[in-house]
Amino acid sequence: MLLVVGSVALDSVETPFGSREGALGGSATYFAAAASLLAPVDVVGVVGDDFPLAQLDFLRERGVRLDALERVPGRTFRWKGRYGYDLNAAQTLDTQLNVFERFEPRLDARTRKADRLFLGNIDPDLQLRVLEQVERPRLVCADTMNYWISSKRERLLELLPLVDVLMVNDAEARQLAGESNVMKAAAAIESMGARAVCIKRGEYGALLVSGSQAFLSPAYPLSNVVDPTGAGDSFAGGFLGLLDRTGGSDLAALRQAVVMGCTIASFTVEAFSLDRLRNLSLSEVRSRFETFRELTDHEALHASIR
Amino acid sequence: MLLVVGSVALDSVETPFGSREGALGGSATYFAAAASLLAPVDVVGVVGDDFPLAQLDFLRERGVRLDALERVPGRTFRWKGRYGYDLNAAQTLDTQLNVFERFEPRLDARTRKADRLFLGNIDPDLQLRVLEQVERPRLVCADTMNYWISSKRERLLELLPLVDVLMVNDAEARQLAGESNVMKAAAAIESMGARAVCIKRGEYGALLVSGSQAFLSPAYPLSNVVDPTGAGDSFAGGFLGLLDRTGGSDLAALRQAVVMGCTIASFTVEAFSLDRLRNLSLSEVRSRFETFRELTDHEALHASIR
Repeated sequence: MLLVVGSVALDSVETPFGSREGALGGSATYFAAAASLLAPVDVVGVVGDDFPLAQLDFLRERGVRLDALERVPGRTFRWKGRYGYDLNAAQTLDTQLNVFERFEPRLDARTRKADRLFLGNIDPDLQLRVLEQVERPRLVCADTMNYWISSKRERLLELLPLVDVLMVNDAEARQLAGESNVMKAAAAIESMGARAVCIKRGEYGALLVSGSQAFLSPAYPLSNVVDPTGAGDSFAGGFLGLLDRTGGSDLAALRQAVVMGCTIASFTVEAFSLDRLRNLSLSEVRSRFETFRELTDHEALHASIR
Repeated sequence: MLLVVGSVALDSVETPFGSREGALGGSATYFAAAASLLAPVDVVGVVGDDFPLAQLDFLRERGVRLDALERVPGRTFRWKGRYGYDLNAAQTLDTQLNVFERFEPRLDARTRKADRLFLGNIDPDLQLRVLEQVERPRLVCADTMNYWISSKRERLLELLPLVDVLMVNDAEARQLAGESNVMKAAAAIESMGARAVCIKRGEYGALLVSGSQAFLSPAYPLSNVVDPTGAGDSFAGGFLGLLDRTGGSDLAALRQAVVMGCTIASFTVEAFSLDRLRNLSLSEVRSRFETFRELTDHEALHASIR
C-alpha cells in the first residue's frame, strides 16, 4: 500500500493559455490522482471547512482512501502562481498555509503499515514526524524546495539518510548540494544519505542517479501544454504507483518507474488543475508509456565505425 | 565528401572555470574537428593575416582540406563571450566580423561536388550563395541565430526549402516560427520548407522532428563541463560526419546521427576551445556512443499493467 503526505489545496493559476481561480490542487492530490491509476493510495493531510469535498469524489471512486485527510475549522491551503511562455518556471504570487500551519500528521493503524511512502513538499519537521510513525516502509521518496533547503537545512540533513529517492528539480539539487554541476550535485546528495536522486526537469524529462548509474527519460513531446502545475507530484505518483504495483525495487524497476512518472506527468500538463488526470484511463497511460522506447531508440554503430 | 562553410575565429571566453583569450574557435573549425573523425571534410572560410595557421595543423593531419580557406589582409573574426553557472546560456560581449564582412565564398571544382553540406551560422545571403555553387548535394544542414532571424528573415525563408535539416536551439526555433511550443514551432518550420528540424538543447540533449516522428537524445551526463562554446557546431560535425561515413539518409540514419552529434559535443565541452577535440580518438567516440543506449534503456511494462 502507498501512502502520501502532502497538501490538498486550492490553486489560482495563470498561464498564457488561460487561468483558474480556487481550483483543486496540492501535492497529495496530484500524487493520489496519478498513483491510484496503478495502486491503492492512502492520503494524510488537512483541509479547511471551506474545502469542497465533493471534488475528491473521483479519487474515492478510484480507490483512494481519504480517512486520514482531516477537515478542521479554517481556510484550506492556497497557492497562487503564474507561468509565462517558459512553462518550466513558475512564479509564486502568494502562498497561504492556513490550516497547514498547525497541521500535525497522525497515522492510523493502517497507514502505519504503508509499504511505500511519498513525503510531498512540506516542512521537513512534518516529513520526519511521518517517518517516525511508519513501521517498516520498503521505499521512501521525498520532495522538497528552496524554502526548506535554506530555512530547515539541518532537519533536511536528518531526513536524507532515511530517504530512498529524493525527487527535486535541477535548481533544488544544486542549492542543496552547493554545487552547480547536476551530476556532482546528485553525487553529493547521495553522500548525504539518499540512496538515489531523481532530478525532475520539466519539459526536458527526468534524470535518475544512483551510484555510478545514470538514467535519463525524456519528457513526452507535447504540442499542447496548458498548465504545468502538479507535474512533479504526478510524476512521483506514477513512479511510486508503478513500483507498488510491480513490487520491484532494483535499478531496472526504478528506471521503468521514471518513465511511468514522465508518462503520467505528460497528461497532467495538458489541462488546468486535475482536469486531465480526473478522466485518465490506464489504457491511455499504457499506450503512451509504450511510445517512450521509440522516442529514444536508435541503431548501434555500423561495423564501419570500429 | 563533406563541406562546411562557416567561421574560423579567435574566441575570448570566460566561464566559472577559467578563461581564454584569442583561442581557436569558429563554427567551421569545431565542425571540421568533429566531422573529420568520421569522414573527409573540406572547409570554406576566411581568416585574417593575424591568424596563427599552425593551430589548424591538427585538422590537416586528420585529413581536413583547407585549400578553400582564404587568408586575406586584416583581422580574423573575433567573438568574446561569457557563461555563468547556467552553462546553457552564453552572453555575447563582443563580435568583430573583421575579414568576414567582405567574405565571398568561392567553391572550386572539388567542393562544388560535395555530397553533404553544413551551412554554419553566417549571413543567410552567404548561405544561399554557397548553395548556388554546390552541384547536387545529397544532404544540406543549416544553422542560424536570432540576429539573422530578425534582420534577414526573407532570405532565411528562401533558404529553408533548400535545407534538409535546420539545426537551431529552442529559442531560435520559437522565434523563427513565432510559436512558443517547441513541437508546434518545429512543425511550422517544416511547413516553411525544411525537411526536418533538429533542436539543440545543450545539457538537455537534442530533439529531431520530421513529420509526425520525434526522436530525443539526452546529452551525455557529465560531471565536468568547462566551456560549452562550439558544442552546437561539433554536434553538427558528428551528425553529418556519421551520415557521410555510413551513407544513410533515412530517419533511422538521422536518429543515429543525432546520437553521434550528442556524443562528440559531450567531449567538446570538457575543455576550453578545441583542446578536447584536438586529441579525441574515434575509439573514445565509439565507446561513449555505445553507452547512450544504456542511458535511456528501460523495460517495457509488465503484463500486470494491461
